[in-house]
Amino acid sequence: MGKRLTKRSEDYSKWYNELVVGADLAENSGVRGCMVIKPYGFAIWEKMQGELDRMFKETGHENAYFPLFIPKSYLSKEASHVEGFAKECAVVTHYRLKNAEDGSGIIVDPMAKLEEELIVRPTSETIIWDTYRRWIQSYRDLPLLINQWANVVRWEMRTRLFLRTAEFLWQEGHTAHATEQEALEEAERMMNVYAEFAENHMAMPVIKGTKTESERFAGAVETYCIEALMQDTRALQAGTSHFLGQNFAKAFDVKFATKEGKQEHVWATSWGVSTRLMGALIMTHSDDNGLVLPPKLAPIQVVIVPIYKGTEQLDAISQKIEPLVKELRAKGISVKFDNRDTHKPGFKFNEYEMKGVPVRLAVGQRDLQNGTYEVARRDTLTKEIVPMDEIVAKIEFLLEDIQEHIFQKAVDFRDAHITEVDSYEEFKKVLEEKGGFISAHWDGSLETENHIKDETKATIRCIPIDAEKEAGKCMVTGAPSETRVLFAKAY
Amino acid sequence: MGKRLTKRSEDYSKWYNELVVGADLAENSGVRGCMVIKPYGFAIWEKMQGELDRMFKETGHENAYFPLFIPKSYLSKEASHVEGFAKECAVVTHYRLKNAEDGSGIIVDPMAKLEEELIVRPTSETIIWDTYRRWIQSYRDLPLLINQWANVVRWEMRTRLFLRTAEFLWQEGHTAHATEQEALEEAERMMNVYAEFAENHMAMPVIKGTKTESERFAGAVETYCIEALMQDTRALQAGTSHFLGQNFAKAFDVKFATKEGKQEHVWATSWGVSTRLMGALIMTHSDDNGLVLPPKLAPIQVVIVPIYKGTEQLDAISQKIEPLVKELRAKGISVKFDNRDTHKPGFKFNEYEMKGVPVRLAVGQRDLQNGTYEVARRDTLTKEIVPMDEIVAKIEFLLEDIQEHIFQKAVDFRDAHITEVDSYEEFKKVLEEKGGFISAHWDGSLETENHIKDETKATIRCIPIDAEKEAGKCMVTGAPSETRVLFAKAY
Repeated sequence: MGKRLTKRSEDYSKWYNELVVGADLAENSGVRGCMVIKPYGFAIWEKMQGELDRMFKETGHENAYFPLFIPKSYLSKEASHVEGFAKECAVVTHYRLKNAEDGSGIIVDPMAKLEEELIVRPTSETIIWDTYRRWIQSYRDLPLLINQWANVVRWEMRTRLFLRTAEFLWQEGHTAHATEQEALEEAERMMNVYAEFAENHMAMPVIKGTKTESERFAGAVETYCIEALMQDTRALQAGTSHFLGQNFAKAFDVKFATKEGKQEHVWATSWGVSTRLMGALIMTHSDDNGLVLPPKLAPIQVVIVPIYKGTEQLDAISQKIEPLVKELRAKGISVKFDNRDTHKPGFKFNEYEMKGVPVRLAVGQRDLQNGTYEVARRDTLTKEIVPMDEIVAKIEFLLEDIQEHIFQKAVDFRDAHITEVDSYEEFKKVLEEKGGFISAHWDGSLETENHIKDETKATIRCIPIDAEKEAGKCMVTGAPSETRVLFAKAY
Repeated sequence: MGKRLTKRSEDYSKWYNELVVGADLAENSGVRGCMVIKPYGFAIWEKMQGELDRMFKETGHENAYFPLFIPKSYLSKEASHVEGFAKECAVVTHYRLKNAEDGSGIIVDPMAKLEEELIVRPTSETIIWDTYRRWIQSYRDLPLLINQWANVVRWEMRTRLFLRTAEFLWQEGHTAHATEQEALEEAERMMNVYAEFAENHMAMPVIKGTKTESERFAGAVETYCIEALMQDTRALQAGTSHFLGQNFAKAFDVKFATKEGKQEHVWATSWGVSTRLMGALIMTHSDDNGLVLPPKLAPIQVVIVPIYKGTEQLDAISQKIEPLVKELRAKGISVKFDNRDTHKPGFKFNEYEMKGVPVRLAVGQRDLQNGTYEVARRDTLTKEIVPMDEIVAKIEFLLEDIQEHIFQKAVDFRDAHITEVDSYEEFKKVLEEKGGFISAHWDGSLETENHIKDETKATIRCIPIDAEKEAGKCMVTGAPSETRVLFAKAY
């Protein structure tokens, strides 16, 4: 604390790293690519989890838990799936350590080698579909709507806190259905749940769409996604929902008896969001002073800082504050009264600014005399004096207003950074000078997509769900195109 | 469903396994020693988690998350700790798979060998204390009160669902304190929290005590525990809380500046309970018809089964039921109205009996005419006819009464199975004929403890916290003893 962050305009990436550590969200551990999520960061993740879990249950899903380890042979059963994950697998090969005979320390016991190597799950389709084979016999067992909260491991070479780590926390939904149509609807439903969560709780606007073939999940027939725009004009994929067709049902031989008594393979979806959302949240709202949190996800929504000299003054303030704290808590508002005598008010102000607490109340001797509080809002950094008898209504108003205001600000920023272009020259110019999403015609070929990616590092983020048909020509090849797609440089 | 369980009196262990699968709690997976926790079993675990998490937070703890992997060198830093866990470690040695050059399939890439092997955490003291070194500088940073919900892996050779699995879910608290006294108080406080949870929520009576040196956690100075008695008269360790002294602080060099400016090593505790509690819950209350759940942990507290022919009758019942369901839910009671037309009432009765739903309502045409419900309670398997206008009060009474009744029943059983003995002959006789806890004098030596264990398979479960001083003689050696300890055969 006390130390200022690097300004976003100077070095966005450095600002991000400093903020994550400075706001006590997370830090790197002694294990390559693995982070420690600190209590304050974890409290935000718990808020996210709680809300998402509620939304999953409301849409009929139940939680379960499947093994951390996946036998190598399972992972290999779906060809494109293993292709997608083989390069970044943590592999367990032994099950025992022992003392080295030469006394040099603890070593892996070569006698305790596993017959078959186990992969630490990078995602759980294979172990889950191996289980579903036992759970699904008849149409009566469908749909099967299951979610799992878990840790997964993908051995990334270049890692960044929250955005790309070797181990991360996530939820993965895995559903099984009797018909293709039902599975498609489920995949789309969960994309919509993610979008609703992102917009209503994270205050982060997203664009819903589908991925091109090259950007699809390994093993999916169709990948739905939500794409957000960060303050540095780079896009971030915030959640994906996959229609898996019958790929995993066939690989793991999961069939069901239809009402008519026929044996058919079931249809599948999977969908997930991860602690990456923490990175998205940070890069959507925060500023040069630190984190800015949407009130709905803030572990502390209101902090009260007493300004006093000596215990007598503190006691007077505490007495005044106590009923207010009770009243706010009864309304479900989370309040912290920071009466630590080890730190000065200025230090505390900076700390809560860094940690993104939406509303801050300060109260000193003059306030007690005047019957007022000094109220500061984190999003605009503005202050005002509020009479004590109006404070509860004011706080309720502010929590709603901040949620709404930071969402609108993010929408305005995002909308100002969607640019339609009709030529590749213009595309490159906008990408270079302005960034953001670029809406352009593309001929639908992998070749063109790769060409653009190689030349500009921009990828097709999605084919928007609500894209209107519009006859056009691919900006690169001139071949006919029926709809615009969204390009961007992405995290 | 439909199939009856093996009777407990015939084969307790077989009954247990059949119940765990039959009540849809868990099953073995294709991965050696790793279980799948099914949605109904996981819903019970979620209830436990929710309650424990609330209790941890009320006692000042915050959640955080630390890496799954522990570098081998970390694990080795505390000598007795690595000694305790080395024999059952899952070891990650590689980080990539690849296609075999001879086309034989997917193999571990020998070029992708880790410089240092990573252990899948069997417990997190080492990685956490490596982190605490960065977090703790001054007395102002203490106490540090942190909990983690996580999966851990211990490569057990003989596994049983919930009781002993290679991977299991648990919580592990890790706290740091400025003084020995404070750490001791914390360790004892958490034992008390566990005991309160076990008794008030699981309806499972426990004996609080400390472990003998040989039964202590690897790296602990003192281990507090709660011990429960299962229906088959074997004991089960349901939770442990360790006073770690300065062992880990010294191994990881974690010091703090005292108020007086001196540098001192901090004092530590750790404490945990796991999905093993699911096994304890099952073996405390269940009967030959299936699971018996305490209402406070039941995912479904009340199930309503309609008895009807044709949709017209079902509609009439549904209409009657709707306001009741609403009223119960408004009171925070979880209700399921099972109107599936794919299964008969008798099938449903068996299913909910197997799943331990505390209260079952049945309602048919005659009930509608008479204005009554047939109400069955799961613990006693008794039924009665209740007028509709008394049903809500009846259900509220039953949920409390069942919670109380199954607790008292377990207390009575446990108390009837604590036997004081004064000779080794009597000890062996009671152990053989009656089982349960045996209270006896012991000379305090490891030698005697091991002798008894080797001869009888009974271990010292604990030295009860509330044991009174009583001059006596060790039942084996005749050496003087100051207090009785509790022996039992244990899970």
